[in-house]
Amino acid sequence: MELLISTIKQLIPLSSEEETIVKTLFNELNLKAGEYLLRDGQVCKHVAFINKGLVRYFINNDGDERTMFFNKEGEFVCNYISFLPQLPSDKNIQALEATQIYVISYEKLQRFYQEINSGEKFGRVAIEQVFLSAIQQLDSLYTDPPEVRYQQFLIHYPDLTQRIPQYHIASYVGIKPQSLSRIRKRIFS
Amino acid sequence: MELLISTIKQLIPLSSEEETIVKTLFNELNLKAGEYLLRDGQVCKHVAFINKGLVRYFINNDGDERTMFFNKEGEFVCNYISFLPQLPSDKNIQALEATQIYVISYEKLQRFYQEINSGEKFGRVAIEQVFLSAIQQLDSLYTDPPEVRYQQFLIHYPDLTQRIPQYHIASYVGIKPQSLSRIRKRIFS
Repeated sequence: MELLISTIKQLIPLSSEEETIVKTLFNELNLKAGEYLLRDGQVCKHVAFINKGLVRYFINNDGDERTMFFNKEGEFVCNYISFLPQLPSDKNIQALEATQIYVISYEKLQRFYQEINSGEKFGRVAIEQVFLSAIQQLDSLYTDPPEVRYQQFLIHYPDLTQRIPQYHIASYVGIKPQSLSRIRKRIFS
Repeated sequence: MELLISTIKQLIPLSSEEETIVKTLFNELNLKAGEYLLRDGQVCKHVAFINKGLVRYFINNDGDERTMFFNKEGEFVCNYISFLPQLPSDKNIQALEATQIYVISYEKLQRFYQEINSGEKFGRVAIEQVFLSAIQQLDSLYTDPPEVRYQQFLIHYPDLTQRIPQYHIASYVGIKPQSLSRIRKRIFS
């Protein structure tokens, strides 16, 4: 759990006793490529930290899938809109590669806030970061034209272009794969 | 500042010493109807608590205004996307009535987090609430048809229909005022 611990320590200090507590609050889970961490209709029961691998976060509108975010190793992923009020999710989270995650339940997260000295500060700063990223990407999703969206993708996920299939990138941009090919030709030619 | 104090106390306990600290961290500001709390291009310098009055939060796309949220007495309002990283805002916040607010600066908010015992918890829970509301309304703004948007407006702001001019409600719904009249006739007839 070294990556998880060091990621938390980027935001708050942790004593060695607190590191031990953190390790007992998270459970390891391994997903195969294609497996779901969350399906729409289910309540999102965990915040997940990705230790290794890659997931996509998407909405399924009657068979038309729209990818909203990607998350990779070193990042937290959760549908907070389902998790915080513990209501059914309208989004899906799916592993794109063999993915190792550490999950913390709603109840254990409350213990994290209480038992870790700067636990509340971690919660505040982490949700501020998620909030910023989510709003910026949602704003872009709905307002930017495809070419700008693709450039945003390259800026947001510079290291992921080789790891994500083109049709998922096209879904994030909001266009068909063949239209993405045309945009790529224009940008890279 | 009784409404501010009681609103904070809905989320965390405050000792009487802490109440005194909170009162020194906020400054009173009075806006006339039509006056701006924030204009696009400016950095959002404060989180504002509305003690009395009503504001709208909107984006101006080359003269085409789109209202995203309304906030009234007892609520916090801020463009966090500008405030948290202290970058220029692309949104505007404007008073719709004579509005009395209490503002806290970025620096004083950090003191709130440090000097109030449960200050970090307040920050976490408050931003969670803002996050939920913002994402739900943004999702709806971009995906729901006008009639659903108007019904969402009535659910979100049941007490505000009489206080907000119809053309601002139409802007929130994303349609022209005459189209809103037709929707209202269908719903209320």
